[in-house]
Amino acid sequence: MKIEIITIGDELLIGQIKDLNSFYICQELYKIGLRTNYFTTVGDSYDDIYAALDISLKRSNIVILTGGLGPTNDDKTKGVLCDYFRSKIVFAKIIYDDIKELFRYRGIEITEINRNQALVPDNAVVIRNTVGIAPSLLFNFGDKLIFALPGVPFEMKEAMKEVVYIIRQNCKLPIVCQKIIHTQGIAESLLAEKIREWEESLPSNISLAYLPSPGIVRLRLTNVGNDRCSVENQLKSEINKLKKIINEYIYGYDDDDDFGKVLGRLLRDKKKMLAIAESCTGGYVSHLITNVPGSSDYFKGSVIAYSNDIKENILKIDKKVIEKHGAVSDIVSREMALGVKKLFNTDCSIGITGIAGPGGGTQNKPVGLVFITAVCDNMIVTKKFIFTSDRGRNIIISGLTALNMLRKLIEQEDKCDM
Amino acid sequence: MKIEIITIGDELLIGQIKDLNSFYICQELYKIGLRTNYFTTVGDSYDDIYAALDISLKRSNIVILTGGLGPTNDDKTKGVLCDYFRSKIVFAKIIYDDIKELFRYRGIEITEINRNQALVPDNAVVIRNTVGIAPSLLFNFGDKLIFALPGVPFEMKEAMKEVVYIIRQNCKLPIVCQKIIHTQGIAESLLAEKIREWEESLPSNISLAYLPSPGIVRLRLTNVGNDRCSVENQLKSEINKLKKIINEYIYGYDDDDDFGKVLGRLLRDKKKMLAIAESCTGGYVSHLITNVPGSSDYFKGSVIAYSNDIKENILKIDKKVIEKHGAVSDIVSREMALGVKKLFNTDCSIGITGIAGPGGGTQNKPVGLVFITAVCDNMIVTKKFIFTSDRGRNIIISGLTALNMLRKLIEQEDKCDM
Repeated sequence: MKIEIITIGDELLIGQIKDLNSFYICQELYKIGLRTNYFTTVGDSYDDIYAALDISLKRSNIVILTGGLGPTNDDKTKGVLCDYFRSKIVFAKIIYDDIKELFRYRGIEITEINRNQALVPDNAVVIRNTVGIAPSLLFNFGDKLIFALPGVPFEMKEAMKEVVYIIRQNCKLPIVCQKIIHTQGIAESLLAEKIREWEESLPSNISLAYLPSPGIVRLRLTNVGNDRCSVENQLKSEINKLKKIINEYIYGYDDDDDFGKVLGRLLRDKKKMLAIAESCTGGYVSHLITNVPGSSDYFKGSVIAYSNDIKENILKIDKKVIEKHGAVSDIVSREMALGVKKLFNTDCSIGITGIAGPGGGTQNKPVGLVFITAVCDNMIVTKKFIFTSDRGRNIIISGLTALNMLRKLIEQEDKCDM
Repeated sequence: MKIEIITIGDELLIGQIKDLNSFYICQELYKIGLRTNYFTTVGDSYDDIYAALDISLKRSNIVILTGGLGPTNDDKTKGVLCDYFRSKIVFAKIIYDDIKELFRYRGIEITEINRNQALVPDNAVVIRNTVGIAPSLLFNFGDKLIFALPGVPFEMKEAMKEVVYIIRQNCKLPIVCQKIIHTQGIAESLLAEKIREWEESLPSNISLAYLPSPGIVRLRLTNVGNDRCSVENQLKSEINKLKKIINEYIYGYDDDDDFGKVLGRLLRDKKKMLAIAESCTGGYVSHLITNVPGSSDYFKGSVIAYSNDIKENILKIDKKVIEKHGAVSDIVSREMALGVKKLFNTDCSIGITGIAGPGGGTQNKPVGLVFITAVCDNMIVTKKFIFTSDRGRNIIISGLTALNMLRKLIEQEDKCDM
C-alpha cells in the first residue's frame, strides 16, 4: 500500500510558512504501522493541484491533501476535487449549523462567503470540523481513499483523528507498538556504541530510530506484527534488556519528555524546595523549571550571578576563593549552590559556572568547560564537563545536565532512605 | 520558468526528521526573484527517486535534489542520476584530495567507502564540498538545470551559495530587493489595520508578507523589477512611508532580528549595566540577554524572585506592600526593578511580575496579567498588560515586551540628552 501527502499553498513555496503538516500526518500514520511514500507540495493553482492529484492517484492508494479548502478565491482544492471526481455541489445543512454555532460562540456575524463552506460535493463523505469552519472531505475512488483536510494545523490535527479512525476501519493494518525512550548525559555516538550488541540482536520486525537534539537523545522503538499481545510483550522484553545497559541515562518515556516536568514532579512528590545559582547558563535553567505550570509549588527562585560582584556580594562567595580558583571552577560552582541554598532557605539547589563561548576560553579553561553542582539536603555532587564550542548548545546542554544531576541525586537519596 | 525541489530520505517520510531543506532552498531562491513551484519528497528507493526525477523534468526547468549522495548503500541518488543521464563514472582526483584533507584535519583515517565519494559522473559539473565529503553535482539536460546537493543541512546551505551563483549566471533574472521589518508590541491584526491604507496603495510589483511569531510580527517587503536603482529606491520610499506609521513598533531590519542583540548593542554603546528581577517569566528575560555572546559586558545578573519570600528578603520589598497590593501589581514590579538596581548597583533594570497561567488567575487578576517596569538611570516606566491564556506565550511575549520597553527608555534618554 502506498500513501501520499499533498500540501497546498503558495506561502509554503516562498518560505513564508514551514510545511509541518506533512511531518505531523506521517507521524500519525507511522503510529498505526503505515509508512508514507510521497510528500508533494504545490501552490494555490488549479492546474497544479489537479496534476498533483492525478499523479498521486496513479501511484498511491491513500492520498491526504491539506490546505486550499477555505472560503476565499485562492482556495482551489474543493473545485479541483469536484471536477476530478465529477461531483455535484449540494448544500449540507448540518455543516451550516456547525458554522452558525461557531460564529455565534465567537460573537461574529456569518457572511455569505462562510455559508459557501456548507456547499459540499454530493459524492464525498463530509467530515465535520469541530474547531473551524471548513469541513474535511473523503472520496472513495475505486479502492482508493482520498482525504482533503483544512491546512490550518490545529484543524488538520483534529481532522487527522477521524482520518486515522477511517483508515483503521478500511484497511487491514498490522498491530504496531511504539515506545520512545528519552536519554540525557550521553552523546549519540557513544550511546550507539554502548547498545550496538543489543541493537544488532533486535528481531527484524523491531526497528530503532535515533532522534537526537542538543543534550538529549531519544530512541524510538517500533514493533510491527499481527498479534497485539506478542507485539507488546516482545517490545517490553527488548526495552527491559535495553534498560539494563543504559538505565542511568534514561529519564522518561513516550510523551513524558519535558525535563522540567520530570524534575518538577519529583520535587513535588518529595516535598523539596529548589533554588538555583546560574552563571554561564544565564537564566536558562530557571526557565526550564518555570516553564512548567505550577512550578511555584517547588521553586523559590534564582540568582543569576553573571558578574563576580554578584557571586561575592549576594551569594557570599569569598573573593579570595574566586581569585585563587577562578570564577569557572569546581569550588565556585559548589559555593554558588550552597550559597543560594542558604540564602533562599531551600532543600535542593543547583550551581553552574562555565565558559559558554565563543570568547573567554583559554588553554586551561577552554570554551565549553562547565562545572555543575547539585545539592539535595546534605548530599552534594559536583561534576566537570567539556561540552561544545557553540554557545547556544553549551547553554542548553548545561541546563539539561544540571537538571539530570539533581534528578539522580534526589532519586539516590530515596534509595539511601530505604 | 518552473522550479522543483526534491528531498530524499526515508527518515523524512516517517516523521523522524523535518524537511527543512525545501524551506531553506525556496527562501534562497525567492531572494533572487524565483518562485518555487513544487516540493517533492521520496524515500531512499531507486525507483521512487527515478520516477520523481522523471516527473520533475517534464514540468520544471530547474530541479534541485537534496539527500542520498552519501557513501552508504541506502544512498541512491548518484546511481539514479547516472542512469537517467547515461553517465560514465570517473575518478575525480581533486575531490579525493578534498576528502583526504578533511579527514586529515579531523584526524580520522580515510576508508574505501569514502574514496567512492570521489567517483563522479563524467557528464556532470562537480561542485566541491567545503564542509563535508559528498560533492554536489550539476547536470545540464537540454536547457534544464539539475542540481544534486547533500542532504545534511549545513552542507546543503554551503552548496546553495554555488547553486544561486550558477542560476544567476544561466538565467535572465529580474532585480529583486527584499527588506524585513521587525516589530514588537502590536498584534498582527492591529498592525494590518494600522497599515491597511499604505498596504493598499503599494505598487503592484511590491509584495508584502506578514510573518508572525509570539510577541513579534515581521513584515517582508519584496520588490521585483528590471532596474536595480529604481527597484531599491521604490522599496526605500515605501519603507519610509511605513516608518512614519509604525515607527514606534520597529526594532530592527533584516538579519538584525534578535532582541537580545539589539538591546545588548544599545547597552554596550551607552555604557549601561543591566540587572533584572523576574517573577512570572522565571529566567526567560535573563536568558534572552545572556544568549548573546559578550553579554557579560553589560549584564550583571538577576534575581528570579518566584516566591514572595525572595521578593521580601532579597529584593527588600516591604511585606506590607505585597500584602496590600498583591505580588502581581504595578507597585511590586516597580519595587522589584528598583530593588535589583540598588542591590546589583546598575544603571538599568527590569522588573516583571504577572500571572503566566494556566492557574492562579482571578476575576480581577486574570491569567495573562503582567506588570513590567523598566528603569534607566533616573527614568522609570511601568506598564500593565493583559496577554494571552497560554503560559508559554505569556512568558515569551512578556520577555520581549520588557526588552522593548527598556530599549525605548534608553533611546528616549538619548533624545532628552540632545
